[in-house]
Amino acid sequence: MPDPLARAAAEALDARDPLASFRDRFVVDDASVIYMDGNSLGRLPRSTEARLHEVIRGEWGGELIRGWDHWLSLPTEVGDRLGAALLGAAAGQVVVSDSTTVNLYKCAIAALDARPDRRVILTDSENFPTDRYVFEGLARQRGLELRMVKSDPDDGLTVEVVAEALDDDVALVSFSHVAYASGAIADMAAITELAHRAEALVLWDLSHTVGSYPVELDASDADLAVGCTYKYVNGGPGAPAFLYVRDRLQGELRQPIWGWFGQRDQFEMGPAYDPEPGIAQFLVGTPPVLGLAAVDAGVALLAEAGIDRLRAKGIALTTYLVDLHDAVLAPLGCSIGSPRDASVRGSHVSVRHPDARALCAAMIERGVIPDFRTPDRIRFGPAPITTRFVDVWDALDCLRDLLAQ
Amino acid sequence: MPDPLARAAAEALDARDPLASFRDRFVVDDASVIYMDGNSLGRLPRSTEARLHEVIRGEWGGELIRGWDHWLSLPTEVGDRLGAALLGAAAGQVVVSDSTTVNLYKCAIAALDARPDRRVILTDSENFPTDRYVFEGLARQRGLELRMVKSDPDDGLTVEVVAEALDDDVALVSFSHVAYASGAIADMAAITELAHRAEALVLWDLSHTVGSYPVELDASDADLAVGCTYKYVNGGPGAPAFLYVRDRLQGELRQPIWGWFGQRDQFEMGPAYDPEPGIAQFLVGTPPVLGLAAVDAGVALLAEAGIDRLRAKGIALTTYLVDLHDAVLAPLGCSIGSPRDASVRGSHVSVRHPDARALCAAMIERGVIPDFRTPDRIRFGPAPITTRFVDVWDALDCLRDLLAQ
Repeated sequence: MPDPLARAAAEALDARDPLASFRDRFVVDDASVIYMDGNSLGRLPRSTEARLHEVIRGEWGGELIRGWDHWLSLPTEVGDRLGAALLGAAAGQVVVSDSTTVNLYKCAIAALDARPDRRVILTDSENFPTDRYVFEGLARQRGLELRMVKSDPDDGLTVEVVAEALDDDVALVSFSHVAYASGAIADMAAITELAHRAEALVLWDLSHTVGSYPVELDASDADLAVGCTYKYVNGGPGAPAFLYVRDRLQGELRQPIWGWFGQRDQFEMGPAYDPEPGIAQFLVGTPPVLGLAAVDAGVALLAEAGIDRLRAKGIALTTYLVDLHDAVLAPLGCSIGSPRDASVRGSHVSVRHPDARALCAAMIERGVIPDFRTPDRIRFGPAPITTRFVDVWDALDCLRDLLAQ
Repeated sequence: MPDPLARAAAEALDARDPLASFRDRFVVDDASVIYMDGNSLGRLPRSTEARLHEVIRGEWGGELIRGWDHWLSLPTEVGDRLGAALLGAAAGQVVVSDSTTVNLYKCAIAALDARPDRRVILTDSENFPTDRYVFEGLARQRGLELRMVKSDPDDGLTVEVVAEALDDDVALVSFSHVAYASGAIADMAAITELAHRAEALVLWDLSHTVGSYPVELDASDADLAVGCTYKYVNGGPGAPAFLYVRDRLQGELRQPIWGWFGQRDQFEMGPAYDPEPGIAQFLVGTPPVLGLAAVDAGVALLAEAGIDRLRAKGIALTTYLVDLHDAVLAPLGCSIGSPRDASVRGSHVSVRHPDARALCAAMIERGVIPDFRTPDRIRFGPAPITTRFVDVWDALDCLRDLLAQ
């Protein structure tokens, strides 16, 4: 019997991985680096490097202002492609522009304005900081109540916790679909249904989901969603975020930042704001063309790999990681800070240890890159499209070695 | 005597141009294109192409998440360099991030919240559309009055027009420093002083100014300013905008979009929003790293040329353009839609003609690229750092030829 804890077992898993060849589609200059932070910043696809060169040199340098003939439609076109490949969203409901935080703000105000008689924003005390800060600001500015459930820091949000916090004063419910610390997945369809029964609107943050999990926004009856593109979508540092508004709500909801890219007949430069009828009304200012091109290339690569195959590999990678942890790291004082049930776990896993901060720094010294999340988490994000099983083995072996010293 | 209307005169001006060599610092693939739209989208500097390659391939591709060790400070560092080179702003007052429209929105709310007992936003009916739309939205959302002066469409805003519209109910005064249609320059110091006497705050839009005119924000006692970087700063399509908040106001003003990039000790991810004490509180979400790098490279190139030399060349180019127009185009039905006094004219000139739209399209067909602004303006933006006097001659000769047919 081969030893399931030996590196050879990881090599065998890689040999059977149907997505293995996708790693060669990325720039990997230093093969000795074990990258476990694809959930913070995805690697650079070779196709993106080529596309950016073309946009910079060919389009900006060569077409000059004439580039806007095709750049103008990038936010909606890339949004449609992202929505189709990764979000389960039919065309005309997604745009790519601005940051996740600005998009959260726009969507939250649109929702609150649609429920003017209600005074509660419901979120999670364990939600990603920028989400909490945006809602805290809006609650303060509008005299609303910011109501926080507290999800389990390792196992995430349950439907029951949400049900208890909902009442007929809740205007907006907003959670992260995959929790940034634990990777726990919330039940989008069930929570959305609960919120709808209370006549609240729901805004999902898909930052830690998109590109790693086949989210079904339309089928889940979701209202609003946002998310970033520099993690599993591999759009590059600070790439523009996306925003989804369900078609049935586009006639009712209005976002607050009235800018010329949301204007119908933009270049008529008319005297009064007259927003586009569809999803384009959620655009604001001039969109970042380089970032949009990178997102587009990243989406195309994920679409080619297929979100279902990416999800399957994500489950396999994180399950292998948890199994190795239990055998090798648990005896050294570590514990898993993520769901053990792979069906409710995203593509990253937290390993908890009291010395997590120092251990993270020491791992990075040795060329293994996870990330640290306060106070005690070493977060491993083995992005399915670029990470090998041997990378997981090497990363955990590095941590084992440090702990054994 | 040489003929002042002959192309040879333009060649002689180019031969004496101290900035002539800077054209070679830009990508000019098709030398037959006469580019007169540097005021909409500046050309690609060679140094920017190299810097972007390094950021994409070396930093994103090679450093991966570790790039954030230095990317994190880009918005304030690039802001400081932009402020020093082009805005007359001491360090700690400028950040680069988000779009001009989002920055306008943040600054406008910060100002309105600081004048809670006043109910008027004062702007110009001839202001750039996105500025008007943002203020229209805020007036609607807050139950305020949007008061519009009407500046002269060709000669711009006078101090007298502003003085008449000011009263003690005005919270915020906001104008473009250089008018997008005419290129007329508003008197920043005088209008700011007037507004301050009325105890209003002033927000300047410098989109058509920055990189072409030595604006002095600190010396003018300005409160707030925003502007874009894809025009004369040559930051590329959709490059991030800047935002200036005077140091003395940073303790008092609060922007409305509370995000994690404005948070003190961002990666502690604390429970409550606790903004940075300085200009960084005006940041929101993850900044666009590629765009920031391009802005930085663009600023460095303008700093090397020197804003005073750029302004001198801008005056020379536009004066030459007006002179040629008067001799050659005025007899064919054109008129100047910009100030004739170069000291109150930015680096672009509008030529008005009833058939402007069709003429613009025909010029572009012939490889001469101005832009059209509704209803009757052909806007020539001879960016000082890349435009030759022969380009001005060739562009106007093309228009003359079309009109003569």
